[in-house]
Amino acid sequence: MHGDPFGSHRVLEPPRALPQAAERLDNDPSRRFDNEIHLAVETLNIDAASFHQMMAASGEKTDGVANLVKKTVKDRGKQHNPVTGSGGMLLGRVAWVGAGATGRGFATGDRVATLASLSLTPLALSAVHAVRPESAQLDVEGTAIVFFSAPMVKLPADLTERLALAVCDVAGAVPQVQRHTRTGDRVVVIGAGGRSGLLACAAAREKVGPSGKVIGIEPGERFAAELDALGVCDQVVRADAREALTVRQAVLAANGGQEVDFAVSCVTSTGVEPTAILVTKPRGKVYFFAMSTSFTAAALFAEGVSRDIDMYIGNGYVEGHVEATFDLVRRHIALRELLTRRYG
Amino acid sequence: MHGDPFGSHRVLEPPRALPQAAERLDNDPSRRFDNEIHLAVETLNIDAASFHQMMAASGEKTDGVANLVKKTVKDRGKQHNPVTGSGGMLLGRVAWVGAGATGRGFATGDRVATLASLSLTPLALSAVHAVRPESAQLDVEGTAIVFFSAPMVKLPADLTERLALAVCDVAGAVPQVQRHTRTGDRVVVIGAGGRSGLLACAAAREKVGPSGKVIGIEPGERFAAELDALGVCDQVVRADAREALTVRQAVLAANGGQEVDFAVSCVTSTGVEPTAILVTKPRGKVYFFAMSTSFTAAALFAEGVSRDIDMYIGNGYVEGHVEATFDLVRRHIALRELLTRRYG
Repeated sequence: MHGDPFGSHRVLEPPRALPQAAERLDNDPSRRFDNEIHLAVETLNIDAASFHQMMAASGEKTDGVANLVKKTVKDRGKQHNPVTGSGGMLLGRVAWVGAGATGRGFATGDRVATLASLSLTPLALSAVHAVRPESAQLDVEGTAIVFFSAPMVKLPADLTERLALAVCDVAGAVPQVQRHTRTGDRVVVIGAGGRSGLLACAAAREKVGPSGKVIGIEPGERFAAELDALGVCDQVVRADAREALTVRQAVLAANGGQEVDFAVSCVTSTGVEPTAILVTKPRGKVYFFAMSTSFTAAALFAEGVSRDIDMYIGNGYVEGHVEATFDLVRRHIALRELLTRRYG
Repeated sequence: MHGDPFGSHRVLEPPRALPQAAERLDNDPSRRFDNEIHLAVETLNIDAASFHQMMAASGEKTDGVANLVKKTVKDRGKQHNPVTGSGGMLLGRVAWVGAGATGRGFATGDRVATLASLSLTPLALSAVHAVRPESAQLDVEGTAIVFFSAPMVKLPADLTERLALAVCDVAGAVPQVQRHTRTGDRVVVIGAGGRSGLLACAAAREKVGPSGKVIGIEPGERFAAELDALGVCDQVVRADAREALTVRQAVLAANGGQEVDFAVSCVTSTGVEPTAILVTKPRGKVYFFAMSTSFTAAALFAEGVSRDIDMYIGNGYVEGHVEATFDLVRRHIALRELLTRRYG
């Protein structure tokens, strides 16, 4: 039997919904569709908001969290928190690869992480062995079903699991920066000192070369100093990214009075859309990676100041993104050391 | 005196804010900065949400609305409704053009419409002559100050004022479609029967030519029939744009089993992001024009189904957009007649 690549063949209700929007999924691993991959699940990485909600609802007791997860998975066929609406991701080993999914390059026994949300992944649990609040993780036994279109990654042998997961989570940044910049380009990275910001700066440095320019915006002194030490930015501007006119002046000063070709926003705070727009030259591009980005704030501001620029909704999926990101981390020793110190 | 192109020289409080975010603007027309244009205002087109709120707050009395507008303009130096946060636009005649703004192509006496929001436009009122609830307009006397970066358009002699304003409001659609499509491309327009949808379909038809394909998605039978009659679509699919899998099947059926190169969303309802993403082929583009678009819904859905596509935040400003749109309406007689019947 061939399943829908998007997983609608596993939706029980409502009819014709997609798996994320569904109330309940068919999580029966004894039914096998030939373009699915089934996993023996070892660890659930619960979304932070979801884990926090379940801890609070259980009087901060981990047993209560285990029971809530079991109940949600039993009721919905997926760990899709009904209160927060969020999921997380999971780690496990490949248990079965359908004949129609062999082209994806996974083999039985591979240790993998799903990059699609738990909110759309059919999951059956037989046991919860431990709940670890410090990492929002649960050690479990069960089976997950990965749809043909759902992104998944083989964990590399040469990077620690924590580091690999930390960079997988923001793996879109590197290839998107590589795609949208050229030799000699001027680039601004807003929120440059954080995880995706560091990756974006390093990717931009390689791509624009010595004739280009990379300007990082970072308010926190520790992150700014670490970014300076990494040596990928021509200048690190210590400024609050919400101060559009201040940041614009600093960027103009750092770039010979000119706006830049490409701006990337990796900031998690709101209100930075005007800043990204005002540092970018007409017909330049702004790439918004942060989930805190407001569609309307960006659209209305650009129109109100007559800025003819291309504005992108950050797409975390890019063909080959995880390998591109792992490779950047492998060849950039200082970046790898910094990321390992912080997130490894 | 030279003003900031973005208007921060007119901000009274808080310091260093941009005009839209400002609590209060300097609306004194006797102060003249040489890159400003000053207008003798004739009509305020109040944003629908703002007008509705003021009517409700005034017991549905137009006198009350006039008083609320006068008070807001007196307090804030702009018609920026403190409850709804929204503005509108205005019509008037050019009263003065600063020496630094002559390059914009406006002359004293020109009849113009501002395309920047009233929420960032300094305004002083000397009288309110009439309030017209049916059009959410006020006939007024006063002066508005147009910043160097604020978009404004000269009203054409050969189109009615109502038609010109109706298409100005969505003028970004035509040039963005022209820019993002090529001869032979396959295009889907979601919400194809509405104002921006019609313009997008007509622009796409011209650009992709007979070797390309334009597929319109429109749920309402009257709009769908009018779109069919316009002859710009190869197929008009009668479907609710929120039904992602249904629409995807219909598009595949209309396009030889293939996804399309470019999708434009002009729909005002929420929940259409998955539809736009699932009809577009890998490395294709989705242009989201509707202000109801959810940034996170688009970003998370594309990632969850591994769709490597470029997703754009609709930018209503494009260099030369109003002329490009007027020109399309002028050369497309049937489109002009339909728009005039509905909006003129």
